[in-house]
Amino acid sequence: MIDTDAVVIGAGPVGLFQLFQLGLLGIKAEIIDVLPEAGGQCVALYPDKPIYDIPGIAVCTGRELAQQLLTQAQPFMPTDRFGAPARNLHLGHLVTELTARSEGGFELRTDKGLQLRCRVIFVAAGAGAFMPRGLNLPVLDTASNVHYHLEAPLLSPPPWADQHVVISGGGDEALSAVLALAEQPDPNQRPAKLTLLHRRDQFQADPTLDARVRIMQTSGQVTLVVGMPTGAEVSDGHLDSLTVLGADGQTQSLELDHLLIRQGLSPKLGPLTQWGMALDRKQVAVSASSFESSIAGIYAVGDINTYPGKKRLLLCGFHEATLAAHHAAASLNPDAPQHLLYTTTSPLLHQRLGLI
Amino acid sequence: MIDTDAVVIGAGPVGLFQLFQLGLLGIKAEIIDVLPEAGGQCVALYPDKPIYDIPGIAVCTGRELAQQLLTQAQPFMPTDRFGAPARNLHLGHLVTELTARSEGGFELRTDKGLQLRCRVIFVAAGAGAFMPRGLNLPVLDTASNVHYHLEAPLLSPPPWADQHVVISGGGDEALSAVLALAEQPDPNQRPAKLTLLHRRDQFQADPTLDARVRIMQTSGQVTLVVGMPTGAEVSDGHLDSLTVLGADGQTQSLELDHLLIRQGLSPKLGPLTQWGMALDRKQVAVSASSFESSIAGIYAVGDINTYPGKKRLLLCGFHEATLAAHHAAASLNPDAPQHLLYTTTSPLLHQRLGLI
Repeated sequence: MIDTDAVVIGAGPVGLFQLFQLGLLGIKAEIIDVLPEAGGQCVALYPDKPIYDIPGIAVCTGRELAQQLLTQAQPFMPTDRFGAPARNLHLGHLVTELTARSEGGFELRTDKGLQLRCRVIFVAAGAGAFMPRGLNLPVLDTASNVHYHLEAPLLSPPPWADQHVVISGGGDEALSAVLALAEQPDPNQRPAKLTLLHRRDQFQADPTLDARVRIMQTSGQVTLVVGMPTGAEVSDGHLDSLTVLGADGQTQSLELDHLLIRQGLSPKLGPLTQWGMALDRKQVAVSASSFESSIAGIYAVGDINTYPGKKRLLLCGFHEATLAAHHAAASLNPDAPQHLLYTTTSPLLHQRLGLI
Repeated sequence: MIDTDAVVIGAGPVGLFQLFQLGLLGIKAEIIDVLPEAGGQCVALYPDKPIYDIPGIAVCTGRELAQQLLTQAQPFMPTDRFGAPARNLHLGHLVTELTARSEGGFELRTDKGLQLRCRVIFVAAGAGAFMPRGLNLPVLDTASNVHYHLEAPLLSPPPWADQHVVISGGGDEALSAVLALAEQPDPNQRPAKLTLLHRRDQFQADPTLDARVRIMQTSGQVTLVVGMPTGAEVSDGHLDSLTVLGADGQTQSLELDHLLIRQGLSPKLGPLTQWGMALDRKQVAVSASSFESSIAGIYAVGDINTYPGKKRLLLCGFHEATLAAHHAAASLNPDAPQHLLYTTTSPLLHQRLGLI
């Protein structure tokens, strides 16, 4: 059980800046994200796309922005040794349970069993927790040879030498997986058979990836099966085959040893809709001055919230995180002076930033 | 008379970002500032001080931030030729008059006689218009040989060869002026006599400047007079002498040919307090969702406004400018679709940014 002042749910740009602002105000915080990397959508969805409307940054990519925000938050992300992951950053965790404590504050639990106790919560979950898109076949959830991309790394150890591996999807992610498996340096570790399963004979991927996979298809290194999976045979927790409906209306049975689902990410609001916060069209309704939700002590900032005039822009999320941090600071320390300090001049802020 | 959609009053960081956001929304705007340079306080008060809390910029100086914001706003600051000043940037102008037009919209007039007609106004005037601090002797206003630092450049043409020049002040600005005059390359253009007038025998300036002026004082190149000016003799629009009260209680008469007032800048809300906008403790009271003042069509953003939860931080001003721009766009074009476009993906925004 981690005991802290604040928990930030979501390590996207707004969550990272929330951590920074809490740090400036002397509030200890932990930060949690379901993705394997900090940066949220900026890294998961548009790492290489240019952004032009961050104030003072004429242009940067999603990944560059995330990196800058991580650098800025570093003073408040303590590590055990140089280069080690931050102790208060918990990646690959989905917050599943929230309980209000009778003595005030909250307890949180993640799907991986992490438990946290805190006084205030900042939900910076963007469009929701980014979860891998599935095949809409619930029976697959029970099979141990079905792999989603948020799981352990693809290649180490390679479980698919001499096996038939089916990869489902037609985007960058699916095509990259095909190439990674087919081009493993040790030929003995390559799958015996590689099938790409996609709903049509056209990919939505980077042209270079697309061309490389087409060459492999021509040479027979990969087989393309066009169709929709409509059924699955699972026995003893093992997926034996998929039933695939082709464009011609015919079905075929696709026997396999492993299925890699690489169909992209889809945001899900997930468990937080059950916590009792008032929602307005799937957004958390907040006050436009404190960004507190209908539950005192739980704030919502960035794309997940709504209030009159709301625009889903990063720069608005930065403002919301800042005012929410100040509101929380005043409620956590009602007797402390609340006059505004500036990073340009305040020795206390310089000390917190590790500058002196 | 300039006829446009919007006028932004104040070319500090928030005013520059206001111009950028209006540009993204296709709203034509002019921008006005009383200072001789864009960048507001960032350039006038702390050009070399580090700022640590601009989201995504771990550290930058005031001048660097202003430069970045100018670069970002470039697509909406048209020039007649490469390197020429922007046609819609009006520096050295104090907006003195505002009139609501009976047919809707507003007319503005500056102290230099510039006239503008527009439909909406964005007051991004920070702490107010930065005006040079005076000596509290109104009679000086009538004298032609009293010079404030916002006037024409100090050295060209040099009006003070063979003259007694008195410089008033004890900060960087005053000491820099002493050095600039005493060290002119052409000895014939240096003043015959140079006096520094300051209220005490101690400066509040950069240590290097301080040391250099002290050396000049020792060598007799500059005379320090310690005291407070309590009176002035002005005849025919010419200041002949100042009466100076010393720390010893004695007064002396200081005859002079020119007086340079270099006592720093002081923000004054100035004429805009007379325009009828509701004020709350010298701030313009605005809605927290639109940042519109009590006068429809006049918005106030950045340090000059107030609303519940307000923090006087640049990043909050950027958010306010953005929501104000969107609110104004909806009111100017009520029939246009108001769905949010992203600079990362929108071809229309790319076109407005001059990228395609």
